[in-house]
Amino acid sequence: MQKSGISKPTLIIDASRAKANIQRMKAKAEAQGAVFRPHFKTHQSGVVGQWFRQKGIDRITVSSVSMASYFADHGWDDILIAFPVNLLEIKKINELAGRIKLYVLIEDLAVAKQLDNLLEHLVGVYIKIDSGAGRTGIPLDDENRVLEFADQINVSKNIRLKGLLTHAGHFYHQPGGKTAIAEKTQQINQKMKALKSKLRKEDLVLSWGDTPSCSMLDDLKGFDEWRPGNFVYYDVMQYHIGSCSLGDIAVAMACPVVAVHPEREEMVIYGGSVHFSSEFIAADQGFRLYGYLVKFTEKGWTTPLPGAWLARLSQEHGIVKLPKEICQQYKPGDLIGILPVHSCITVSAIGRQHDLDGNLIPKMVSI
Amino acid sequence: MQKSGISKPTLIIDASRAKANIQRMKAKAEAQGAVFRPHFKTHQSGVVGQWFRQKGIDRITVSSVSMASYFADHGWDDILIAFPVNLLEIKKINELAGRIKLYVLIEDLAVAKQLDNLLEHLVGVYIKIDSGAGRTGIPLDDENRVLEFADQINVSKNIRLKGLLTHAGHFYHQPGGKTAIAEKTQQINQKMKALKSKLRKEDLVLSWGDTPSCSMLDDLKGFDEWRPGNFVYYDVMQYHIGSCSLGDIAVAMACPVVAVHPEREEMVIYGGSVHFSSEFIAADQGFRLYGYLVKFTEKGWTTPLPGAWLARLSQEHGIVKLPKEICQQYKPGDLIGILPVHSCITVSAIGRQHDLDGNLIPKMVSI
Repeated sequence: MQKSGISKPTLIIDASRAKANIQRMKAKAEAQGAVFRPHFKTHQSGVVGQWFRQKGIDRITVSSVSMASYFADHGWDDILIAFPVNLLEIKKINELAGRIKLYVLIEDLAVAKQLDNLLEHLVGVYIKIDSGAGRTGIPLDDENRVLEFADQINVSKNIRLKGLLTHAGHFYHQPGGKTAIAEKTQQINQKMKALKSKLRKEDLVLSWGDTPSCSMLDDLKGFDEWRPGNFVYYDVMQYHIGSCSLGDIAVAMACPVVAVHPEREEMVIYGGSVHFSSEFIAADQGFRLYGYLVKFTEKGWTTPLPGAWLARLSQEHGIVKLPKEICQQYKPGDLIGILPVHSCITVSAIGRQHDLDGNLIPKMVSI
Repeated sequence: MQKSGISKPTLIIDASRAKANIQRMKAKAEAQGAVFRPHFKTHQSGVVGQWFRQKGIDRITVSSVSMASYFADHGWDDILIAFPVNLLEIKKINELAGRIKLYVLIEDLAVAKQLDNLLEHLVGVYIKIDSGAGRTGIPLDDENRVLEFADQINVSKNIRLKGLLTHAGHFYHQPGGKTAIAEKTQQINQKMKALKSKLRKEDLVLSWGDTPSCSMLDDLKGFDEWRPGNFVYYDVMQYHIGSCSLGDIAVAMACPVVAVHPEREEMVIYGGSVHFSSEFIAADQGFRLYGYLVKFTEKGWTTPLPGAWLARLSQEHGIVKLPKEICQQYKPGDLIGILPVHSCITVSAIGRQHDLDGNLIPKMVSI
């Protein structure tokens, strides 16, 4: 890893790992007969988007109108905004719909009607189905409401029904691991297929996509479209869930060491919640895990050092807990690596990104 | 509040409240005979910096070399970087020390020596004292180490001892509230004064500064310099600690409503962890508080609506819990306000800031 030129917290992206993650997920989706429409909210980068394009991907998912604009400006012309339509951004939505194939997400009949009135171009819509995450969407079992919704869309002028979309966000906290996730996925799929046959629309797309299920499960054949996002980089949370190996994690935050306290088995790094965001994995007795400590090597980084983890964050400081004998190997001015807990949020927070050769990897700025 | 032009999460700053907060804290510091050196990490804005300058403030604190550069470029010429020296940024430190009065923070004797060798200009240093936060610094009771440190600095060429600095970060979680904070502050002050007399340096500055103690305590006379930062905006956490009233909170995040679910007493807003960061106040039974719901009014915003709070965040979504009868007053396309839990971190995360009249309030971008 090219350390020269790094003097403050910088996210290091291992491009080979990211490209391998892309290739693997694309091949898996295609082997299951699904369209691969990866979510770009994780990397938010035109350069990383190119890595997808080089693998033949031409349809993407984003989580905001701003992100759709950014990627449209980077040449993407088939974009799904997988976030409930924000009516306050109708002007931008119209502008985008005039230049690319745009899809949006709705879960509210009144919004569907307003959208139809306000749109100036034809836009494909997905109906958001709540398959258990309890965040947004029509409950999976509320068949009547889905049918009513589809009827409304069918008599609309500017919106056309494209699919039913769900995000199993609750899989991130699913007790029972892979077996339970497989079982739940199967149940959701059966119900979505039943809805599809009720809607009597052959080309209706059943859209699915969370990194845990797309990574872990062998059979997802009942879904027509996959939208995972996090898999491009993975992270410590995905490793704990079982979605990836440590060797698949494609990002590590480079942080300068600013203080070493062997007597209390801690060191202080320049790297805080403004760089990592504040997400952590909690355990008993107030234990918090914000990331794992790694050493940078010539070609990348090591596996996590045993017994060492990022345990506390303040605005700019991070406190790494580590065994005394490892602690004594460090001094202020060293550069260490941290595998982040949640790469999507960390990417959004951090200012600078490099690849292993020291090339800047730009990403969208305004959020 | 000027709503037009706001279509996505935007931090609204009530300039009058912020200016009143500045005025009040400055007057309080001066009444106690202390130099007021406010921390600018909370607002990170050249424009807000001007509000301080208009009150006659000419010395500031920042938390990174980047932030020092930003404010030096905005005309500030007396800056303390209250973060352990990051040796990897020596080039920038030298550049800054060549054009402004720069102070840095050290807690490691080896770093002090290296710094002295690497500096090209005279720099004032504060020794970091750990008064109980357990993050960085020489333990308050380790008199010998402080003396040894001062001896080292005294024989240095390019660094000169300016003061002893501590940050009582543990006051944010201090059981016993104001009484306990007053008592602990008194103890810390006594010990720091004892260190000062041992060091036999009349002009040694005892530097203090956390928003809870500076806001709550009537007597802080033993400290020569105050460095609170959060007070400029305050937030829900400070309100809970008892540092401010709800009417002192000077920031509210404007967020579009994208879905309303009266049946489960929730609404979904465009505003997630990429806008607020992921910090929350936790309570029993998994309760999490990410912020309070307010309504924007012509001149600002209301007090928090009863029984309504921001309860969950994902990357771009926020879930507001609120009583059914309040929920029914909202529809997608409305703009609501959220008083954030931790303003410093939220300011760092958010892309756009406006004042109540709709003027853009720029801030530093790279972190």
